[in-house]
Amino acid sequence: MSAGDDAAPRPAVAPRGASMRATRMRLHAQHQAIAVMRTDCDVCRAEGLAARSQVLVSAGARQVQAVLYQADGDLLGHGQVALSEAAWRALGIADGDTVEVRHPPLLESLAGVRRRLYGGRLDAAELSAIVGDVVAGRYSDVHLAAFLTATASPPLDDEETAGLTRAMVEAGARLRWPAPVVVDKHCVGGLPGNRTTPIVVAVAAACGLVMPKTSSRAITSPAGTADAMETLAPVDLDLPTLRRVVEAEGGCLAWGGAMHLSPADDVFVRIERELDIDTEGQLIASVLSKKIAAGATHVLIDIPVGPTAKVRSIEAADRLAARLAATAAHFGLAVRCLRTDGAQPVGRGIGPALEACDVLAVLRGEPGAPADLRARAILVAGAVLEMGGAAAEGAGAALADATLDSGRAWEKFRRICEAQGGLREPPRAPHVAPLPAPRSGRATGIDNRRLARLAKLAGAPEHPAAGVHLRVRPGDAVARGEPLLFVHAQVPGTLAYALDYAREAGDIVAIEP
Amino acid sequence: MSAGDDAAPRPAVAPRGASMRATRMRLHAQHQAIAVMRTDCDVCRAEGLAARSQVLVSAGARQVQAVLYQADGDLLGHGQVALSEAAWRALGIADGDTVEVRHPPLLESLAGVRRRLYGGRLDAAELSAIVGDVVAGRYSDVHLAAFLTATASPPLDDEETAGLTRAMVEAGARLRWPAPVVVDKHCVGGLPGNRTTPIVVAVAAACGLVMPKTSSRAITSPAGTADAMETLAPVDLDLPTLRRVVEAEGGCLAWGGAMHLSPADDVFVRIERELDIDTEGQLIASVLSKKIAAGATHVLIDIPVGPTAKVRSIEAADRLAARLAATAAHFGLAVRCLRTDGAQPVGRGIGPALEACDVLAVLRGEPGAPADLRARAILVAGAVLEMGGAAAEGAGAALADATLDSGRAWEKFRRICEAQGGLREPPRAPHVAPLPAPRSGRATGIDNRRLARLAKLAGAPEHPAAGVHLRVRPGDAVARGEPLLFVHAQVPGTLAYALDYAREAGDIVAIEP
Repeated sequence: MSAGDDAAPRPAVAPRGASMRATRMRLHAQHQAIAVMRTDCDVCRAEGLAARSQVLVSAGARQVQAVLYQADGDLLGHGQVALSEAAWRALGIADGDTVEVRHPPLLESLAGVRRRLYGGRLDAAELSAIVGDVVAGRYSDVHLAAFLTATASPPLDDEETAGLTRAMVEAGARLRWPAPVVVDKHCVGGLPGNRTTPIVVAVAAACGLVMPKTSSRAITSPAGTADAMETLAPVDLDLPTLRRVVEAEGGCLAWGGAMHLSPADDVFVRIERELDIDTEGQLIASVLSKKIAAGATHVLIDIPVGPTAKVRSIEAADRLAARLAATAAHFGLAVRCLRTDGAQPVGRGIGPALEACDVLAVLRGEPGAPADLRARAILVAGAVLEMGGAAAEGAGAALADATLDSGRAWEKFRRICEAQGGLREPPRAPHVAPLPAPRSGRATGIDNRRLARLAKLAGAPEHPAAGVHLRVRPGDAVARGEPLLFVHAQVPGTLAYALDYAREAGDIVAIEP
Repeated sequence: MSAGDDAAPRPAVAPRGASMRATRMRLHAQHQAIAVMRTDCDVCRAEGLAARSQVLVSAGARQVQAVLYQADGDLLGHGQVALSEAAWRALGIADGDTVEVRHPPLLESLAGVRRRLYGGRLDAAELSAIVGDVVAGRYSDVHLAAFLTATASPPLDDEETAGLTRAMVEAGARLRWPAPVVVDKHCVGGLPGNRTTPIVVAVAAACGLVMPKTSSRAITSPAGTADAMETLAPVDLDLPTLRRVVEAEGGCLAWGGAMHLSPADDVFVRIERELDIDTEGQLIASVLSKKIAAGATHVLIDIPVGPTAKVRSIEAADRLAARLAATAAHFGLAVRCLRTDGAQPVGRGIGPALEACDVLAVLRGEPGAPADLRARAILVAGAVLEMGGAAAEGAGAALADATLDSGRAWEKFRRICEAQGGLREPPRAPHVAPLPAPRSGRATGIDNRRLARLAKLAGAPEHPAAGVHLRVRPGDAVARGEPLLFVHAQVPGTLAYALDYAREAGDIVAIEP
């Protein structure tokens, strides 16, 4: 309609919807907001709502979009709407409170997803609208999966990647630190056990740098840094606690999810996990949006390269490094990428608690500490120290080594854990079983992807003590029947499931005569 | 593991899982199979199951894969699993029956989806595995959305399209008819109201052709042929009934869903509807798999072309026609495509019952019958008569016209409806409101997409009587305030929602001074 036709007859506009009594279902469905109403409910009839309709439920200024299921029988009374835990939390209501239920607004941003899906490109405004709707909980699982899949091929270009990064930063909170240099690090996953972060933070903070580290939980791996750290200290810190820890110790090792930094990322991660995908554009936006929102000025990015790592060739690593730096430049963020050996797992443990044990051993300078993890941490920490100006170019690794050797890093780590709520010992799994060598010979290599899958099937990261402990390293001689690794599980079901997989998957540890 | 190492120690393989008592939740969630167990359930602990885990529930030889939610409190007893209606139907059990709950097998076919999502191609075996898992209910909504999105860009190539078509045919039932020529037709949607099929079937069968027509419900349109036909006669026929109708009358107008023809298509359609997408490759596989499974030998495909129709240019129509014919050739199916004018809606009604009224008016030769629908039906029916050998090339339209004029088509339609269970009058909507012209002038065009959206917001196709009745056609003079169309709704909520949209969407009917 053109302007100037306001004299044309118009029906009155009123916010429609119907008042209903809310009932807490005590139904756990992760992030999913679910509403259940009677099949013969008057509101469903009046509003034309059916099973799997999307509904907008509001209580005062708070609202949540939920998927509607319908129930026959006596589960619910007339005028009642039952809500899942995610919906209940979002609304912040009490049993019997009145809520309004109505059709959600049209999901206009989905037009952008559809264009992308047919090969079109997304501009900054479209990405901002999509991310805004995602954070507001307006995207169903189907919509989220379509967005993530549509942006996989063709890959997000530089402009789209920057636009997505900006949209993700702006949809959440943003930390600012009273320091000119704030360092951070990130490892592009794909390498089981490579848990250098806690060691690097301890070294950097011990050397006077500010490193307020917030980490994610696992996407497709058996453990994220936050999962591993959580077995050592509380990581679910609120913002005042995090600030206090960083002010006192120069560093922290917190879970980023509680900070509301790039909250869309957490939603995307859940769907990527179900699909077991992690595309380059999403990866860049995910990494950088978290770092920018966390207030970093200098970020070291560790890119392990290997035939079964996430990044499989030097060319791919260099391309990713270039794309990371190019996108970071839009935001005035300095990025340095470090290509590392991703052919073999690092450390002995795979899984939250098992990796935490490796970290403790290195920090404490225990005789049995995994030398490869120590060496890797020194490499990364050295680069961070150089970037942050705590060491001259080329002198970082030596300083990191000395900081570990002297016990100053362990002392700093201990203090950070105490400030976060207390250092604790990682849990041990009650069910452990060996995977025996099928033949005698020499171990020549380890299949990282199968190893990670095995640890996940054993229950990691949902079960913190679950995972895999490697007994054999490439180069070791093994006798038939000798354990190659131990599977750790919290419950018998996942132990058996993991062992079934290990038996059927073929050689996880390659053995040659 | 290589062969020959069977002496290596192996844990015993046993089908794991736990016995639980099934409870019917009477929860409606469309096709979604949902299982609810207690948060503190022993089975969840033993198996390592969490909220939104996939679980395999089996009862004897029948099984269903469900998403798991968890409930605190007294909703469920220990050892109980509550199931949604879709899960209940799939298992065919009674309250209190014992079921087994366990981890589902690894979803190996998802590796193909992931490859496709990164730009790879799918071979016949991968497509067959994917479609098999889809039909077995092993794909979650997230997996389904990823598959459909991943196959949108780059578009499915000819080999993939043929492979998908074959996989979809082979995953379901296949009808065979004791006739050398079995004709069928399909309209590639996007044109509101273009409900020629019931007229074409009546004409073809009246002229002696065999036309066992099975139709779909709407994907993204306000009505599918099955939705419209259902307001005139039962369409949910079992196979023996369908055979009896076709034997007696030479034709039928049934819903294909009950036939288990290309059952994956129905699953895809639900997700495509939520995303409001319909890609070319999926479209071809969807159309042809249904036709091949239904036993057709000759298929006429109507492709409306217009700026707001699904196919927007002659080039796109010709490309689609070529791809349809090329794919059909793999299966020995003769396809002829008819490019028709898709600029404007056909008929006056948009929505199941409103379209059915137009069809009845044409068949009965009523004076007010929409001339454009009659002309379009004659065009399509003429081509079908020629393809099927009931008329010489170029003589089909005249025969179709005469068959309508003589009342033989109406008589045949009436007999088909009676054989299907009885002809009935379409329902009328209790709530009707006009959309007034915002200014005086001449109607110059109708926006098909907005018109279809308006009819859907009014409640079509879920509410059969809902939709839009066009009062004005392009070329008509209109006075300001005069109704351009009427919105029909079953309930006040959708009426108001549709009118809101009509007011905000801009000109659905363009009016120029």
